[in-house]
Amino acid sequence: MISTPALVAPSAGAAFEARTVEHRDLRDDDVLIDIKFAGICHSDIHQVREEWGSAHFPMVPGHEIAGIVSAVGDGVTKYKVGDRVGVGCMVDSCGECEFCKDGEEQFCSKGAVMTYNGKGYDGEQTKGGYAQQVVVSERFAVGIPDGIELDVAAPLLCAGITVWSPLKRWGAGPGKKVAVIGLGGLGHMAVKLAAAMGAEVSVLSRSDAKKDDGLALGAAAYHATGDEGVLKSLKGTFDIIINTVSADLPMQTYIGLLRPLGVIANVGLPAGNYDFAPGAVVGGSRVVAGSNIGGIPATAEMLAFCAEHGIGATIEKISADEVDAAYDRVVAGDVRYRFVIDTATINA
Amino acid sequence: MISTPALVAPSAGAAFEARTVEHRDLRDDDVLIDIKFAGICHSDIHQVREEWGSAHFPMVPGHEIAGIVSAVGDGVTKYKVGDRVGVGCMVDSCGECEFCKDGEEQFCSKGAVMTYNGKGYDGEQTKGGYAQQVVVSERFAVGIPDGIELDVAAPLLCAGITVWSPLKRWGAGPGKKVAVIGLGGLGHMAVKLAAAMGAEVSVLSRSDAKKDDGLALGAAAYHATGDEGVLKSLKGTFDIIINTVSADLPMQTYIGLLRPLGVIANVGLPAGNYDFAPGAVVGGSRVVAGSNIGGIPATAEMLAFCAEHGIGATIEKISADEVDAAYDRVVAGDVRYRFVIDTATINA
Repeated sequence: MISTPALVAPSAGAAFEARTVEHRDLRDDDVLIDIKFAGICHSDIHQVREEWGSAHFPMVPGHEIAGIVSAVGDGVTKYKVGDRVGVGCMVDSCGECEFCKDGEEQFCSKGAVMTYNGKGYDGEQTKGGYAQQVVVSERFAVGIPDGIELDVAAPLLCAGITVWSPLKRWGAGPGKKVAVIGLGGLGHMAVKLAAAMGAEVSVLSRSDAKKDDGLALGAAAYHATGDEGVLKSLKGTFDIIINTVSADLPMQTYIGLLRPLGVIANVGLPAGNYDFAPGAVVGGSRVVAGSNIGGIPATAEMLAFCAEHGIGATIEKISADEVDAAYDRVVAGDVRYRFVIDTATINA
Repeated sequence: MISTPALVAPSAGAAFEARTVEHRDLRDDDVLIDIKFAGICHSDIHQVREEWGSAHFPMVPGHEIAGIVSAVGDGVTKYKVGDRVGVGCMVDSCGECEFCKDGEEQFCSKGAVMTYNGKGYDGEQTKGGYAQQVVVSERFAVGIPDGIELDVAAPLLCAGITVWSPLKRWGAGPGKKVAVIGLGGLGHMAVKLAAAMGAEVSVLSRSDAKKDDGLALGAAAYHATGDEGVLKSLKGTFDIIINTVSADLPMQTYIGLLRPLGVIANVGLPAGNYDFAPGAVVGGSRVVAGSNIGGIPATAEMLAFCAEHGIGATIEKISADEVDAAYDRVVAGDVRYRFVIDTATINA
């Protein structure tokens, strides 16, 4: 077994403790990664606080992982010691179903293995990136191009790919008007990526508080949706809306912001239902879509794009002892725009 | 003015009367069409009965028109006397906006002019296909290939294009599993077209009453959704669902019949809202789409496809004095699968 210092949530909602945890010895296809940075995703908080149903404790969260390969299994061909790699939300899938073959491993028929708070096909509980090392199959490590620093690369592995997928699926690019609802961890990446794709990007945020940021990130326009009349003035404007918020929004109103043939792609999970008149989509051939992370080939493509365009996440780097406080700040929306843990500060 | 015998709805819900109506003299870009057949679309009934809000009477319905060009304006280049042509739901659009330029005239920024119960840019009320002649711009006449008889071609101009658009947009073809909800005028065309595209087609209908028909039309499977457990057994099955019914369906259940990345495309307008949990689309990157007829280039493409594959509508040909009764039968679901009026029987 491989022992490594990690931040462990001992039980639902309890403060993190620095402990030593164990990973399996390398299988033929495994790589050992020395983790340098791990992003804090809002979904980490939901799981640590057991807000998404039964969770498994003790838990080592973290699925925005960036590090360096420090050992490889005998059959590994994709990486060598010293390579810069990331790990996202998944660490295994069957590899044989049509979704796996299509590079959409998140929809694996057997069920993809989540990076943490999941169970591997071997029955072992998975442990994530708030640690100094992790062991994963080389199939689920993604090379990080030299052009991106590891700290700003880490959040690309979840926040980045989650918004990349719908932007690509729905054709963001030159001549397209893209709106991003919510300027948080996902939203700020959506703005950067869509702008780099050549789209004309608008931010839709409740207040003007993040206006300067939104424009600096690459948006051409910023609209405070809390202001009366703003949504009405934007009717029929956008080709693509990426909705990153998990608050309940008036879906019919937002569908109405789409031009004919437009798409609102939702990546958050609000508590309430979507509720809208059929005519809201039928009349203008509009589309209400969901989007769930992305597969490994798309993640590699996204990282190459980010390297080419000089894109990384906008981060606030923190040490291990700041994670509990950071969680509260994430819930309060007080982060611009992603906390990234320097894993060297984990003292177990 | 050009006078022509027509079936006229004198007021909301009243019986049809055969009268002579007038069309404008030919403009440079107009063609005069001797109408041979006109299909009865359920939307005709909604408008004649004023179920879709205020309508204009007297009304000559009909937007599934097939006939022969009998005169052309001085500037007409697309057609000559004797050409076989059809007219669908639209007879004019600005021709200059980006939607018109993209061949999506139904989304014209100025507002496309509907074939009947609409107002032309000249302010005149439009009159549709339940008549022996019609005058339209050549831009909105679509050539009907020799391979399709005019009677079975007429319904292609609305029922055909309405289901063709989503089947093409969402990639129906070999290797794709397509379900069609409802086996009526639109549904039976969806089955024929999707099967000819190479998709594996299933019919989802309330009862087994149309099972033999469904299979004969090209479906590989037929499911009576009124039977308990049937919908449950189909979870995660389809790549594309074309929902042709205007009844309120449990949308979340039907979304659940989609495979990951699948699309339910709705062409009907039920009275109630769609209401479903965000997770129904987000988890599997699924899509709830609407679809509204189709543009002129797509209509031409659809007709060429139908000619190549020997596809026409399955029709019941009726005379002018049978139209009132046919309306009641359409409302009762008692037509297999489209009434088509032989306009030669209109005696005004």
